[in-house]
Amino acid sequence: MVSKAVAKYVHALHLKKYRLRHQAFLVEGGKSVVELLRSGLLTERVFLTAEFAAKIPSLPAKVPVEIVTEEELTKLGTLANNTTALAIARLPEELPLEPAPNKLLLALDEVRDPGNLGTLIRLADWYGLQGVVCSESCADPWAPKTIAATMGSFTRVRVWQRELPEWLDALPADLPRYGAHLEGDNVHRLDLRPGGVLIMGSESHGPRPEVLARLTQRLFIPGAGGAESLNVAVSAAILLDNFHRAL
Amino acid sequence: MVSKAVAKYVHALHLKKYRLRHQAFLVEGGKSVVELLRSGLLTERVFLTAEFAAKIPSLPAKVPVEIVTEEELTKLGTLANNTTALAIARLPEELPLEPAPNKLLLALDEVRDPGNLGTLIRLADWYGLQGVVCSESCADPWAPKTIAATMGSFTRVRVWQRELPEWLDALPADLPRYGAHLEGDNVHRLDLRPGGVLIMGSESHGPRPEVLARLTQRLFIPGAGGAESLNVAVSAAILLDNFHRAL
Repeated sequence: MVSKAVAKYVHALHLKKYRLRHQAFLVEGGKSVVELLRSGLLTERVFLTAEFAAKIPSLPAKVPVEIVTEEELTKLGTLANNTTALAIARLPEELPLEPAPNKLLLALDEVRDPGNLGTLIRLADWYGLQGVVCSESCADPWAPKTIAATMGSFTRVRVWQRELPEWLDALPADLPRYGAHLEGDNVHRLDLRPGGVLIMGSESHGPRPEVLARLTQRLFIPGAGGAESLNVAVSAAILLDNFHRAL
Repeated sequence: MVSKAVAKYVHALHLKKYRLRHQAFLVEGGKSVVELLRSGLLTERVFLTAEFAAKIPSLPAKVPVEIVTEEELTKLGTLANNTTALAIARLPEELPLEPAPNKLLLALDEVRDPGNLGTLIRLADWYGLQGVVCSESCADPWAPKTIAATMGSFTRVRVWQRELPEWLDALPADLPRYGAHLEGDNVHRLDLRPGGVLIMGSESHGPRPEVLARLTQRLFIPGAGGAESLNVAVSAAILLDNFHRAL
């Protein structure tokens, strides 16, 4: 039986304002909660159904665990139906944001859809990028929908939030700043290697003009059909694969 | 003022059962409706707000147009807020499904998320693929969420629905059947050219065993990080770019 105070706290964490105030976020679903418990992130509390608890090899020693019904779990979280697990995790401390040689940073300008943002964080994990820099106008990296779309990658990928134009201006002048553009250079004709920043814009408009103006190289993905553009995560995936062809 | 009978018909088209029965589907939002009117697809009826109607250079001559309020439009459709347009379109007639030389077909096994399906149809449009073959267990290609995610590509990309194992068995024996697999060949070491079928599986499980067993070549996307897998549209994008490097 979840206490009223705890339920109130969990419900508050549905909202960005309270995630910031409490420096905590929700992780929903068995797979994501298991990834959380295996990771270096701090966990405040875990809620499990008895059925799911029986499937986990060992429960965490230092984390309070509550066994709840599926109905209670579903009421606590944001999913339409959660039959497994929910956890409260601490927001990680922000590490220094310094571009590393031979690693790419992914910078996102106004990616407002949490599903797209989560897919991009998962992609950054796949390629072992240094991390993801989000403009303040992006979806919240710690929103339940973002966390779900990362498929566990939220435990491994570093995320920073910055005003992109100012942050880009403060970077070393010789650091490459790449971005997708319909009039850019054909990526298949370039020998791209990881290093610098790859900047991706919003779903419908691409990066804002003040961000576009700060690119040092525009990259074009050749196509042969009728679509005017690609989804932001899809474009980022194709570009990142072109940066990592030496793997 | 939309008549009760028309409103009832539009509401019925929210559901797959009635889309099939009436052989019609809904197109929502100004951009998609404009693409529909420019395309070869038959349109039964268009609903526009007065504000949006004023922005369209010319209204279609042979299609009934109703001017409605934003409130009426939002009540008719599935979007939380539609301030522009909604249309009823006829399902296109199915064309013969015969693999063409030098063109890829994209086959999708159990892609249940309409957003992913729409993104994949948009991707097929970008690369000018021959079309997309969906297993019966995929999301409905004519669902409003799928149509929205195609960003207009539903007007250009041919879609078929087939039982994949049986369909694959009936193809010419020498036609390549590619699929993503964690133990496949590194795509960066292959010289892939468009031709045959690229088969992508569901978000969480990959293709079913009976589909996997029918692949002639397994393709692996090299990564360097911690993620176990990639989103289905993201994987398809990277593979399709590798098939089209001669562009």
